[in-house]
Amino acid sequence: DDSFVLAGVKYHSRLLVGTGKYKDMEETRLAIEASGAQIVTVAIRRTNIGQNPGEPNLLDVISPDKYTILPNTAGCYTAEDAVRTCRLGRELLGGHKLVKLEVLADQTTLFPDVAETYIAAELLVKDGFDVMVYTNDDPIAAKRLEEIGCIAVMPLAAPIGSGLGIRNPYNILTIVENAKVPILVDAGVGTASDAAIAMELGCDGVLMNTAIAAAKNPILMASAMRKGIEAGREAFLAGRMPRKRFASASSPIDGLFF
Amino acid sequence: DDSFVLAGVKYHSRLLVGTGKYKDMEETRLAIEASGAQIVTVAIRRTNIGQNPGEPNLLDVISPDKYTILPNTAGCYTAEDAVRTCRLGRELLGGHKLVKLEVLADQTTLFPDVAETYIAAELLVKDGFDVMVYTNDDPIAAKRLEEIGCIAVMPLAAPIGSGLGIRNPYNILTIVENAKVPILVDAGVGTASDAAIAMELGCDGVLMNTAIAAAKNPILMASAMRKGIEAGREAFLAGRMPRKRFASASSPIDGLFF
Amino acid sequence: DDSFVLAGVKYHSRLLVGTGKYKDMEETRLAIEASGAQIVTVAIRRTNIGQNPGEPNLLDVISPDKYTILPNTAGCYTAEDAVRTCRLGRELLGGHKLVKLEVLADQTTLFPDVAETYIAAELLVKDGFDVMVYTNDDPIAAKRLEEIGCIAVMPLAAPIGSGLGIRNPYNILTIVENAKVPILVDAGVGTASDAAIAMELGCDGVLMNTAIAAAKNPILMASAMRKGIEAGREAFLAGRMPRKRFASASSPIDGLFF
Amino acid sequence: DDSFVLAGVKYHSRLLVGTGKYKDMEETRLAIEASGAQIVTVAIRRTNIGQNPGEPNLLDVISPDKYTILPNTAGCYTAEDAVRTCRLGRELLGGHKLVKLEVLADQTTLFPDVAETYIAAELLVKDGFDVMVYTNDDPIAAKRLEEIGCIAVMPLAAPIGSGLGIRNPYNILTIVENAKVPILVDAGVGTASDAAIAMELGCDGVLMNTAIAAAKNPILMASAMRKGIEAGREAFLAGRMPRKRFASASSPIDGLFF
Repeated sequence: DDSFVLAGVKYHSRLLVGTGKYKDMEETRLAIEASGAQIVTVAIRRTNIGQNPGEPNLLDVISPDKYTILPNTAGCYTAEDAVRTCRLGRELLGGHKLVKLEVLADQTTLFPDVAETYIAAELLVKDGFDVMVYTNDDPIAAKRLEEIGCIAVMPLAAPIGSGLGIRNPYNILTIVENAKVPILVDAGVGTASDAAIAMELGCDGVLMNTAIAAAKNPILMASAMRKGIEAGREAFLAGRMPRKRFASASSPIDGLFF
Repeated sequence: DDSFVLAGVKYHSRLLVGTGKYKDMEETRLAIEASGAQIVTVAIRRTNIGQNPGEPNLLDVISPDKYTILPNTAGCYTAEDAVRTCRLGRELLGGHKLVKLEVLADQTTLFPDVAETYIAAELLVKDGFDVMVYTNDDPIAAKRLEEIGCIAVMPLAAPIGSGLGIRNPYNILTIVENAKVPILVDAGVGTASDAAIAMELGCDGVLMNTAIAAAKNPILMASAMRKGIEAGREAFLAGRMPRKRFASASSPIDGLFF
Repeated sequence: DDSFVLAGVKYHSRLLVGTGKYKDMEETRLAIEASGAQIVTVAIRRTNIGQNPGEPNLLDVISPDKYTILPNTAGCYTAEDAVRTCRLGRELLGGHKLVKLEVLADQTTLFPDVAETYIAAELLVKDGFDVMVYTNDDPIAAKRLEEIGCIAVMPLAAPIGSGLGIRNPYNILTIVENAKVPILVDAGVGTASDAAIAMELGCDGVLMNTAIAAAKNPILMASAMRKGIEAGREAFLAGRMPRKRFASASSPIDGLFF
Repeated sequence: DDSFVLAGVKYHSRLLVGTGKYKDMEETRLAIEASGAQIVTVAIRRTNIGQNPGEPNLLDVISPDKYTILPNTAGCYTAEDAVRTCRLGRELLGGHKLVKLEVLADQTTLFPDVAETYIAAELLVKDGFDVMVYTNDDPIAAKRLEEIGCIAVMPLAAPIGSGLGIRNPYNILTIVENAKVPILVDAGVGTASDAAIAMELGCDGVLMNTAIAAAKNPILMASAMRKGIEAGREAFLAGRMPRKRFASASSPIDGLFF
């Protein structure tokens, strides 16, 4: 039984997904279903989960009965904005305490502003939230966010929406080795092997959106990602062979029959 | 229905496995089962498939009724040896025409001797064999082996037993783009993401042995590889997102609610 | 005349060097000479530049008449310590205002503590220092340190003393593109090509110590680094050819004579 | 005195250059001068070195008194063509025995046809030529060409004119380790750090054309390449520091003064 725990809840799927950039609500629904995700993140500032009563509500399609809804602060550039957004999400979701905090530095790179993230994380933890936090791949920042009380740390693989895969595996590995909370790669994954690599480094999960939604066939890519995550996780648990420049043949070299 | 065809037979599993380096026959059996492989390659010069009547016979464990047995010429360093070994395999397997040809250059690198491989391939094709052929990652050699009449070309990812993964993805991609026969990466894969990458490049399958047998938990790694292959294949078919240095946020940047 | 300016002084050498880890003072002197460096950084907390009157003084070997001495705060783990160390350096060097600030997070990774670095940088800038600052490769942190008033920003290539080369060229490139002050790679370079790559990315210079001092032949490696830096700088200025998968031959394909 | 020997002649410059793709003869001359090259390769089938008496003759600009002229068989796709071209070159150059053999497989990839190259090399060696030979990065092919009697083996870094740098450093390293003749990387280098890496792997030299001629400023790039080659060579001789994930600080961690 391979699972990980967030805020007291056990999850079997290690693939977390977003809801942005799909063609329509139906594609969103089908892709998320194919991904096998149990946690779905929703950008409170961009997605109607009840703020706009007359408009289509995402929660009609992605039901909180079936999925853990993870409200996120995408589009927030200050700690203050992010904290306010989390409070709005909590209200809309009936007291739900789990949030994904992201405080971005600018609209071009979408890199996190780590200093503002510290401030927001401290406020949210004090306010009783269960904070999962998006950050850069600096092992020192990751540790600090854990010490602040975040329940999961989510370093980027590469810039949001870039699809570049894990730019600095050494940093991700160091973050994993030093962590006592779950580490989930968030942002930058582009294809299934990228997700597998994250898991082979020992991450507890991967959150993605664009890599699925911007594939030519998002539903098939969702399935690919699901399998990539499982493959990487199993390979991590199985313990890979050592890398060598050369090896003896696949079969023992002694004992030829003729 | 995603399958590929070798010598007129349709296969759904794109993971081909060897039988060397396992602890015992039981581990061999369980790992191969977990891999989901339909094709199992056997080193004729090292494995008893009937040559030594009094000894344990691999075919009692890996039944030809269940698996396509792919005799290979591991341990052969000349075209002559390789051809002789294929003929022995055919005899032992009751006229079976499918073989994996490998002619190695030396015992250290285990790189193929491509010039000798050409010679052996020509002889075997003329002799009515269905030849799958191990080669280096030179696109020119791959094309030549196809022209000789091999039914599948199997370039290495990295040296046999090295676990280094695909050293030169550009070359594998070029081989795939130019091919009219199935291309299967053979040798050098170390973990699940390596297998996924091979499939994302458009390969039709991957053959491996050490990466499974030399993992700490071979049976779990076999499952990881199965999923890695499927993940990579689906990602290839799904059409990945383009790589960019930066992108807009995962959710559209316009239309903020507040 | 290709030069860069730090605190109003023009420098022609883009290779900055440290003084640690050498066999003896003579090797230090010879390696620094071979490097062509004009700026030599000195760890105030570890190197005698006058604090210990009875002991050998580095400045007798590396004369401030010949080199710009750049006192650094290696070994400081808090902003307070770093500021105190800078003040001591200024005193020992007769009012010298140029310093290299580094505030480390721990003794294992030697990664910078970016949050503490911000604090120290603000205090030092206010106190009239010309601050060159060691940081991680986060483009947001680099920009913030520039905005604080640092006269040069010095992102790491890889962990101090690792010799791993530039782990994340995309980040270094983004830092360079966004900067209005000189960007110098500091830490992690291992060999001459690493230094060349830093310069090809558009950096203004590279600071290193271990890569020279821990080579088998430090004096020859110092020369290699000097040339590597110059090579990379010239290649950057010359404007490299575009990367392509294939190209026409080196000579035009038309106009064969026979 | 660091030099290498080809056909009994000692060379100090390890950068060999071509003459294709320049704007005009004057730019060719200046770039080659800036490169410091002592050996200049000339495509016999494309360059007038006397075949066309009325037209401008390259040898008027690149004098055989100053440079070793290395006729090459660029544009030849069969052993027969290549051998014929070498004989023409020998005639035009007054009995000159040094040639660079290249037999290409197709006009798109410009990869060598290794099998045809073997044939041509055997014929040329028998005919008394001193054969430097372009090949792929297969260590087995490199060794075979040495055994045939070639005086230098020249594996590609990447496809001709691609500027992709060394695609498979492991292969180049294996070629170098196994060789008793000079190994020179030929083709695929794009910028100065690529050239440095080739030398750091232990190659005896690098031949290039497009990387210089197709730079925005070819003359400055020629200088960059010269320095890159020297930097890489010196770094190789100096013996680089070991790579580590982390290290102690650049200065010893003990003995802090306060």
